[in-house]
Amino acid sequence: MTAESTFIEMMRSMARDPAARGLMDDTAVIELGNETLILTHDMMAEDVHWLPKADPADVAWKLVSVNLSDLAAKGARPLGVLLGFMLGESEWDRRFAGGLERALIHYAVPLLGGDTVSNKGDKRAVGLTAIGAATHRPVPARSGARAGDVLYVTGTLGDALAGFELAEAGLEVVDTLSAAYHRPVARLSDGQALAPFVTAMMDVSDGMLLDAERMAHASKVEIRIDIDAIPLSAAYCAMRGDSLDSRLQAASWGDDYELLFTAPADSALPVAATAIGRVNDGSGLALFEANAPIPLPPSLGYQHH
Amino acid sequence: MTAESTFIEMMRSMARDPAARGLMDDTAVIELGNETLILTHDMMAEDVHWLPKADPADVAWKLVSVNLSDLAAKGARPLGVLLGFMLGESEWDRRFAGGLERALIHYAVPLLGGDTVSNKGDKRAVGLTAIGAATHRPVPARSGARAGDVLYVTGTLGDALAGFELAEAGLEVVDTLSAAYHRPVARLSDGQALAPFVTAMMDVSDGMLLDAERMAHASKVEIRIDIDAIPLSAAYCAMRGDSLDSRLQAASWGDDYELLFTAPADSALPVAATAIGRVNDGSGLALFEANAPIPLPPSLGYQHH
Repeated sequence: MTAESTFIEMMRSMARDPAARGLMDDTAVIELGNETLILTHDMMAEDVHWLPKADPADVAWKLVSVNLSDLAAKGARPLGVLLGFMLGESEWDRRFAGGLERALIHYAVPLLGGDTVSNKGDKRAVGLTAIGAATHRPVPARSGARAGDVLYVTGTLGDALAGFELAEAGLEVVDTLSAAYHRPVARLSDGQALAPFVTAMMDVSDGMLLDAERMAHASKVEIRIDIDAIPLSAAYCAMRGDSLDSRLQAASWGDDYELLFTAPADSALPVAATAIGRVNDGSGLALFEANAPIPLPPSLGYQHH
Repeated sequence: MTAESTFIEMMRSMARDPAARGLMDDTAVIELGNETLILTHDMMAEDVHWLPKADPADVAWKLVSVNLSDLAAKGARPLGVLLGFMLGESEWDRRFAGGLERALIHYAVPLLGGDTVSNKGDKRAVGLTAIGAATHRPVPARSGARAGDVLYVTGTLGDALAGFELAEAGLEVVDTLSAAYHRPVARLSDGQALAPFVTAMMDVSDGMLLDAERMAHASKVEIRIDIDAIPLSAAYCAMRGDSLDSRLQAASWGDDYELLFTAPADSALPVAATAIGRVNDGSGLALFEANAPIPLPPSLGYQHH
């Protein structure tokens, strides 16, 4: 076990409250009075989640989107955010604050509080807590996929990967791909619209294949994915092609913040989404190309542990 | 303006939602359904909030207590916490997890979620979000002190200062003082009991004089403090004496996590507290010794900005 997995296991052993969902879901879900609260806290660290050359405004935007994407996967309506911020170079701070304000205005989500601390170290980290209220109950979880359901994903996959590669190469020539990487958008309204229709839902943050495997595990089912069905954007295909390799990479890179969900086969979905697989009795992930099984790639996504 | 005050001003300018209370209060207060939510997020950074030699279990304990103390000042019942944690040396992490579990068991507060991230820097920071539900409405604020009210504080002041000095000297010979510094306790039940009686309430985190000045400012009143009335423990007096200087230091050092509150003069308070001053028409802080005004010390407490 890595240090991270050891620590997370210690945290799980103490997170016995049902609202914690065993720390196996994207958010905490708390019943309070006549409402259901959805809470999430994500951190980002320099050199881990952003490159030193990154625009601080993009870091702030992404911090907001990553947290709100977790609320989106629960069909939650955001109530506000709290920021944990480590001070540093003041122009960086100023640009971060500008990006934060822009993101909060975009999502119409209020800043409610938080904390600002000095930093005596050589790197920074920032954290955000997002709080929301469920718009539909039961609140969608990873664990609800049932045999016979269809697996869907919103939008396209791989654009953040292509945008990252452009940024690495210093060639930010395709706006949509750069935006997908630097300024991902949480699908809040889609999540709320889908919540009454889905059997399971999560956001694609660590790689779709890895996230689908987690859904299969939580739901105690097998999830079959047709790799040919993975939705790719025209810009992605123009840059990286649509070979099997390219498709597998799009499906195992994180940072997409699309919604991955299952619904009964006859559902009339309220938002556009692509059917990419099926839920079967069994366990784990099964990958198919042209209706024939193919091996899983060595990495399904970004593993925290 | 310092970098921190500039950043905080930027945050205030975007925290326009009434629930944010202009970022001038200890917590956010959100009305939701038939409940009132209380939310706070405090961070602690290495070399800023704890010394490298500190026991990680104490860091975890303090992180929990600091956040729950903010809930206590609102008379809130805690619902749970979310942890933001930067990984580092695994024995440190393990001891931190142990201290966290101990604190959460002490307060009977569940760990609901959070995030664990890698750290490429040379220092760490940890953050905690605490969420609670109001037990009394209106929720106590800093801004409710009225002329004629009496100013009270729970417990004794300065013990954390004395405990810090013992720790610095490597002479941890007085358990109560060391505990006050390393393992402060949030006054959750006292805060809940007091909430219906107080006109204003906050916790003493940055120094009582500074916190009282903030209360005076938020309430648009003058607060007069009788420095002779400051409650000191026997252990504190044995170590540091009860001279005016010693009293001023106890009253301007932070980390006490006592409750500072105002109540009408004829209130029958449900918890033990010491009357240390009065609320008058006017503005700012007035300090008295033996009923004669004395100048304010150069520093009223730990200034974040």
